[in-house]
Amino acid sequence: MKNFFQAKRVAIIGASKEEGKVGNVIFQNFLGLPFKGEVFAVNPTAEEVMGYPAYKKLKDIPGKIDLAVIAIPAKYVIKAVEECGKEKIKNLIIISAGFKEIGNKKLDNQLQKMLSKYKIKCIGPNCLGVYSSQGVDTLFLPKFRLKRPKPGTISFVSQSGASGSAILDLAAEQGYGFSKFISYGNAMNINETDLIEYLGEDKETKVICLYVEGISDGKRFLDVCRKISRKKPIIAIKGGISKKASQATLSHTGSMAGQAEIYFGAFKQAGIITAHNLEEMFDYLRIFEKIHIKPKGKKIQVITNGGGYGILSTDAIEHFELEMAEPSKKTTNSLKNKMPAIAVIKNPTDLLGDANTQRYKDSITAYNKDKNVDIIMATILPQTPLIGEKSIIAALKELKKQIKKPLVTITTGSKYAKELRKKIEKTGIPCFEFPYNAARALKEFTSFFS
Amino acid sequence: MKNFFQAKRVAIIGASKEEGKVGNVIFQNFLGLPFKGEVFAVNPTAEEVMGYPAYKKLKDIPGKIDLAVIAIPAKYVIKAVEECGKEKIKNLIIISAGFKEIGNKKLDNQLQKMLSKYKIKCIGPNCLGVYSSQGVDTLFLPKFRLKRPKPGTISFVSQSGASGSAILDLAAEQGYGFSKFISYGNAMNINETDLIEYLGEDKETKVICLYVEGISDGKRFLDVCRKISRKKPIIAIKGGISKKASQATLSHTGSMAGQAEIYFGAFKQAGIITAHNLEEMFDYLRIFEKIHIKPKGKKIQVITNGGGYGILSTDAIEHFELEMAEPSKKTTNSLKNKMPAIAVIKNPTDLLGDANTQRYKDSITAYNKDKNVDIIMATILPQTPLIGEKSIIAALKELKKQIKKPLVTITTGSKYAKELRKKIEKTGIPCFEFPYNAARALKEFTSFFS
Repeated sequence: MKNFFQAKRVAIIGASKEEGKVGNVIFQNFLGLPFKGEVFAVNPTAEEVMGYPAYKKLKDIPGKIDLAVIAIPAKYVIKAVEECGKEKIKNLIIISAGFKEIGNKKLDNQLQKMLSKYKIKCIGPNCLGVYSSQGVDTLFLPKFRLKRPKPGTISFVSQSGASGSAILDLAAEQGYGFSKFISYGNAMNINETDLIEYLGEDKETKVICLYVEGISDGKRFLDVCRKISRKKPIIAIKGGISKKASQATLSHTGSMAGQAEIYFGAFKQAGIITAHNLEEMFDYLRIFEKIHIKPKGKKIQVITNGGGYGILSTDAIEHFELEMAEPSKKTTNSLKNKMPAIAVIKNPTDLLGDANTQRYKDSITAYNKDKNVDIIMATILPQTPLIGEKSIIAALKELKKQIKKPLVTITTGSKYAKELRKKIEKTGIPCFEFPYNAARALKEFTSFFS
Repeated sequence: MKNFFQAKRVAIIGASKEEGKVGNVIFQNFLGLPFKGEVFAVNPTAEEVMGYPAYKKLKDIPGKIDLAVIAIPAKYVIKAVEECGKEKIKNLIIISAGFKEIGNKKLDNQLQKMLSKYKIKCIGPNCLGVYSSQGVDTLFLPKFRLKRPKPGTISFVSQSGASGSAILDLAAEQGYGFSKFISYGNAMNINETDLIEYLGEDKETKVICLYVEGISDGKRFLDVCRKISRKKPIIAIKGGISKKASQATLSHTGSMAGQAEIYFGAFKQAGIITAHNLEEMFDYLRIFEKIHIKPKGKKIQVITNGGGYGILSTDAIEHFELEMAEPSKKTTNSLKNKMPAIAVIKNPTDLLGDANTQRYKDSITAYNKDKNVDIIMATILPQTPLIGEKSIIAALKELKKQIKKPLVTITTGSKYAKELRKKIEKTGIPCFEFPYNAARALKEFTSFFS
């Protein structure tokens, strides 16, 4: 499988010089980083593509090809696959649509047979293919529309191309680091389970993310997930859980989706974390990507500079069946000595509207030492006048090195707050928008480790 | 009450020339728009504030004052209120903290008596006060930290200052238009119900938004809300619904919060829309601020250019107990003639990854005419290559004028998608981030009108 992600010599069948065409965008993707190998254009009618020689036939390319990408109309695909087979290419990504998803079963069968005949592993057809931080990028959406993520430890398997890419785009912008993104389309030859199994063993991948509508082999899927979810979180969105949607799924990728309850129950047993919508998935990613400290339990200490956020945090913690920590007298007394008399030093701890970096430093440090506290959840509202971005970031960087407990933060607001969130997340501390989101993520986070 | 929002002659007691001080920020707020009246600095020790003469005593100011703002230490407040009373000032905002919220009942009683004695209406103490698009701005958070919203029809009443201002800041950045924001703090003299009652009659206010922890007079609150919610949506977040939070509330604003179920049940009966978290509130604001067409029913037609989003939309519609519309044969046949053969023209309608503006125009126009459709929900994923921002915005502008049904849109992604969302919302069409959020908002929207 690894050629799908790390291939060094790639042929683009259907590489085109016409701007905006799928074969043009994909070819261009391989001209720059992260790809470091050689790319070859295959096009029977062109002399050159973007200044590179175009090969009329695959066999004209000198040397061995690790991976071929097919981006030509469906009716020419079978022949192209045959040529790949003859050239002993074992890894193939077929972008082209027009197979079982539009009811063309005949072409589907032909393709399946051809792949079997030459023992080719194939992603697609009817997909976006692969984005890998190790080089391969077959996403035919130009970078100004679809931002590529920075390298990281999340791998994302998506049955839906457009939806998957919208999510990838948003994730990239929010600063999530990805190892691999795979849009596998019709799953004719490689399905969601094959990919999860591979990612389970993949050292670059620490968190597996899945958008799936239909599952080809339910039993194997659950078996594989059960094994992998013991060491890596698998976060899944199941599309097509409603009755109406099951019907729509059928026409969308030609696979059948089933009933909500059955899926969610089975997912849970297999250790899969279900996200009920995309936003939820992002919040889970945020915590699992960043925190690798196992929490001792689920007793949360809340710190805030806005009383209301203390209340909302408490509500959310109870709602998600976590616990409010009860810090020791020793801790609270030592903190009281350092704080103004009207600060509320219990749980939640209200550092008040005139809180500065020092109060956060003191309280996080104190609760880090308190055995009654498992996790620290700190709201930092930057609308209040004494929160200095530079000093709070410097303090969090320092704290991140020292603390032995999961620490999550929350901030809300416009440009200034968003900048602060980005910078906090760069220190490796997750920063949520609202207490509700933080508590929901902590719920799954503590469950994963328990 | 209207002097709290439209006062023309305002005295700032505690106006200061020291940058960063509360009395400095507030005084500065009145030096520029939206305030168009006269502002007077009261400060016994300064000669001038920001180049304006400082009055040693309130009575030194020539002419009548409509509104006084007090931003001085708690121990000097009673005397200042007395001076206001003697000068026949009837509207007062007390920013200062240090009353019942820190257990200082004695000072609290003194203040209460003084206000009664002179029949003064007072917002606060322990609050941020008021932001009004008609002029008054006592928020002591500088504009670079707390963005002020554009003028609009939302009015927001918040018990919590810091939390309220974080929400205001985020709302401003997302382009929501506000008429008034009121942080009422300890609610000693004017409480949440008084404010809602006023906003219910206020012509500038079309949507009322509330963040409340404790409610002073439950029966009156519900009576007032029941009446107003018939004509204006009231969206409320109730902080302090958990047992632990009830305790924290007590120390935060000195008011008592109660049990979740009791509140939610009573809210519902009074026609209040409960938002369970801040994000939910934003989604409700999005739809109630923008759409003023009454939906005929709750049959939704889904349009998308990403099959997965069609599935997720269908799931969300079923989850929130809305209905999938069943468009007439006439509509789908006429649309099929205009679309490529593989486009899926039913519900959801999948315009495919190569969808352009024309396909959206055709399908929205067709479903607008179809009697079987009450509401249109269109996903526009801009990662696909043929979505042109300019043309889609021009088309939506045109459609907004023509259509007779609520239309909501969805888009997901990074910079490009966010730009698109902003521009769509400028046309007056709500644009959500995910199908789940759109369906949740439509649920409350259709309930409000039914």
